[in-house]
This record gives sequence, C-alpha cells and structure tokens, in this order.
Amino acid sequence: MARSITMQQRIEFGDCDPAGIVWFPNYHRWLDAASRNYFIKCGLPPWRQTVVERGIVGTPIVSCNASFVCTASYDDVLTIETCIKEWRRKSFVQRHSVSRTTPGGDVQLVMRADEIRVFAMNDGERLRAIEVPADYIELCS
Amino acid sequence: MARSITMQQRIEFGDCDPAGIVWFPNYHRWLDAASRNYFIKCGLPPWRQTVVERGIVGTPIVSCNASFVCTASYDDVLTIETCIKEWRRKSFVQRHSVSRTTPGGDVQLVMRADEIRVFAMNDGERLRAIEVPADYIELCS
Amino acid sequence: MARSITMQQRIEFGDCDPAGIVWFPNYHRWLDAASRNYFIKCGLPPWRQTVVERGIVGTPIVSCNASFVCTASYDDVLTIETCIKEWRRKSFVQRHSVSRTTPGGDVQLVMRADEIRVFAMNDGERLRAIEVPADYIELCS
Amino acid sequence: MARSITMQQRIEFGDCDPAGIVWFPNYHRWLDAASRNYFIKCGLPPWRQTVVERGIVGTPIVSCNASFVCTASYDDVLTIETCIKEWRRKSFVQRHSVSRTTPGGDVQLVMRADEIRVFAMNDGERLRAIEVPADYIELCS
Repeated sequence: MARSITMQQRIEFGDCDPAGIVWFPNYHRWLDAASRNYFIKCGLPPWRQTVVERGIVGTPIVSCNASFVCTASYDDVLTIETCIKEWRRKSFVQRHSVSRTTPGGDVQLVMRADEIRVFAMNDGERLRAIEVPADYIELCS
Repeated sequence: MARSITMQQRIEFGDCDPAGIVWFPNYHRWLDAASRNYFIKCGLPPWRQTVVERGIVGTPIVSCNASFVCTASYDDVLTIETCIKEWRRKSFVQRHSVSRTTPGGDVQLVMRADEIRVFAMNDGERLRAIEVPADYIELCS
Repeated sequence: MARSITMQQRIEFGDCDPAGIVWFPNYHRWLDAASRNYFIKCGLPPWRQTVVERGIVGTPIVSCNASFVCTASYDDVLTIETCIKEWRRKSFVQRHSVSRTTPGGDVQLVMRADEIRVFAMNDGERLRAIEVPADYIELCS
Repeated sequence: MARSITMQQRIEFGDCDPAGIVWFPNYHRWLDAASRNYFIKCGLPPWRQTVVERGIVGTPIVSCNASFVCTASYDDVLTIETCIKEWRRKSFVQRHSVSRTTPGGDVQLVMRADEIRVFAMNDGERLRAIEVPADYIELCS
C-alpha cells in the first residue's frame, strides 16, 4: 500500500487571475511544495543537507500529466494528497490529488497530476539522474 | 498545415531555484503567455473585450501533458513555438515546444507540452466550455 | 491600541533563488495575503462579495516602505504580524512585521513594511479611491 | 550624470488579479529583473560567474521605497528606466521608473521605486555585505 501524505494550501487573492479563478501555474507551484513535503514528512532531510552529504540537489521533474477538473478561487482551502505510485530504477511517479470541501461539506476533486521525477546530482555543468537511493525508498514505505 | 507562432522569453535570476535552474512552475507561466500570444497574433481580441462582446472569459486549461528534456537557467533566452494540433468540438489541443540556443549555436529542446483548453463563458457561478467559435478557427488557419 | 492579527507562512524551495534565500518579491506576495487576512479576520467579507454589494474591489497599494533585516530560506516558518498604524480619510497605513524563530528559540525580525492602501471602487475605466468606510474602521477596532 | 538603462516588460494575463490590474508583487519581480539587467548591460558578469571568481552571489535588497501611481493591465508594455542614484561605501541606491505609453501616445508613470541594495558574499552560513567594488562603479559610470 502506497503511503499517502496530505497538506493544505489556502488560495490567496493574488493566486487568481482576471477571470476570478486560480491561475493554473499556481497549481504546479503547490504540487512542488507537496512533493517536497512528502519527502520531509517521510524523514528525508532538506536538500541543503543532502547536497552536502550525498550530492543530491533535489527531485527535478521529468514529466507531468495533469487534469484540471473544476475551478477554485481565493479563500478556498485545498487539500493535496500525495503518494508514490511507482518506484522505477532511476525515477518515480508521484501522484497528487487536489480537492476542496464545498460550503455544503462535499469534497470536490479540483485537479490531479502524475509527476515523474528523479533524484539528481550536480555533475559539474549539469544535473544527472541517479538510481533512486534504497534508503529513501525505505523511508517512504 | 497548422499555423505556428513563436515568442521569446528571457529567463531571470528569480525564475531559478536554489539548484540554479528554472523552477518548473515558471514554464507553465510562460506557456500560458504563449497560448494567449498565439491567439492575439492570429487576430483574436483580448479577453477583456471578448467578455463584453461575447461572454468569453478566456481559455482555461483542461489538461496538460508536459515533458522536461533539459535544464535552463537565467540569461538563457527561450524560444516558444506554439501551434494548434487539433480542434475538437468543445476543446482544442495546443502544442508548445520550448528550446534554447546554446553558446555554440545548437538548438536544444528544453521542454514541450500539449495543453487541452476550452473557450469558456461565465455561467453565473461557474465557467462553462462552449463550442469552439468557427470564426476563431478561421482566424487561426 | 491598534488591533494586531498574526498569520504564519511556510517558505517553500521554489520561493528561494539561486543564492538559496527567499527571492524578495515573494515577501510582497505574503504581505498581500497578510493584508487581506487582516480584514477577513476582522469580519470584512471577501472582495467578491463587497464588489457586488458596495462596488469595492479591494485595497490596492499606493506606496510601500520595506526594510529587509535578515535572510530566510525554505522550511523557515514566518510569522507575519499585521496592524493598521493609521486611518486617514481616503487611505490607511498597514504595518507588517515578519519574523522567524531560530532553531535555538530566538525570534528574529526578517523584514518589515508599511503599506499605504486605499479602498477602491471600479469607476468604469479605472479604480478610484473612496473614503474609508466607517463600518470597516469599526470592525477593525 | 547617472547612466540610465531601459528595458521593456510585457504584462501577461496571469500577472493580473481578479480586479483586472497587475497584482503588485509582480512589479517587484520586474524591478529585480531591471536591477540585474542594469549591471549586465554595464558589463558585469552574471552572478554564477562572480560567485566563482570573487565570491559575490548578487545584490540582495536592503530596503525599498515604492510608489504606485496608476494601474496597468495585460497587454500593456512597461518601460522600466533604471539608474544608480547614489553609491555608498557598502550599498547603493538604485532608482526605477516604470511607465506605459497610452494608445493615444501619452507616457504615464505607473510606479517608481528606490531600492537600496548591497553586493553580498556568502560567508559560510549567511550573506555579508561587502564594500562596493571600485571596478563595478567604474563599469557603471
């Protein structure tokens, strides 16, 4: 069973566009926070520590497949549920489900996304994907 | 043949993260600018005018499928090439290819994305997808 | 005695720049959230309601005087304390103090700012400052 | 006579808020780009090079005094004129004037700001202001 971690994100006025709804790049901002929050909650240290200890600078994104289901606006509080759907040798699939609770108490799916990410080292000039560290998989189980 | 529109986007220091590369949500910011730029260049009026004349508030995103191929950093100038890959009855697929030219003169693909979007009206409480206006398809041909 | 409202803001990886510290425009993002949070907590309705009921679209900024005292980085949790320093006839001075608690338990001032803002109506083409509504001053006392 | 450098910044839909005007933190984003653009145009190398050669990570902001004169919206093209108003021993005052040209051809001041910044080195744990390098002052004359 994949471990699931949840965080909440309040939508601000400035997160919304002239149509009055969340300007969608902000969702990717929040997914990135949720991605890192997942690892922090599982016990991985912050990247500023892993870069010193193991050369790992973070988990850059390789691809993203996102669906936007319904709109949200400021004062909505989003719930972002994150899990690792699949570990591969040099990458992993992180799944996020973003929902809001309506004033009436219903839970609505707002958007969802599968992100493929890698653990990366700084190889002088460029970033290089490394094999997913076994101890990280262990921590996230 | 799909019409293709190109714009350039300079990367700023603040667009990059502590790993020194573009923080990826910024790509979605630039794709949104490229999406609207496409329609402006094809002759569609700005949304502030279409909302008054036809109730159309813009082209909210329905899904996005993005691949990140290589990293970029500040002072890189990105070229974003945008076209409509497919018109459907109530949506359309907009394709973006983002590249940079290396100091040596090579063109590198940085990322690409297919966005599905709709033309939307404000139906009182919520946004509603409308049939893609025939005159808009005409303008984009 | 000026009423003071406090909110917390977690700093994310993507809020930081290649120097590893908060990219300063993000502070203004958070101050704007704190400004609105102040009024919400005092009982003012969201702008989407005031625009319908009284034509008030929000509190655009007229000037800002900010000092940046020490740096902060991702995983720091900022405390933003906000009060109204002065009500004028058509504007008000909102003061924000942003601090962090060090691992050792000390409270450090990170930045502070005085913002002058107005309540604005949409006068057809442009925004126009109105007299500060007396009932809003009452709610904030 | 202070040297003045000009850049242009197009406003995008997503830079605007539900009131339809530029969400003001974005001005600080553009001022930061204008600040760095000033030094680049004067011949200073990018920070990724100065950090290696001289330990200089950039020009963090110490204070900002901004006035917002009139609103702007998407499709407006801003002109940002930047100069160094004053060199001090360990800091400098950078002045930005942001204007737009109306459809009728008038130039309107949109906002202006004086930023105090320092050249900073990374002193292990924290950033430390250094004396303004004499060769940088020379380049900017």
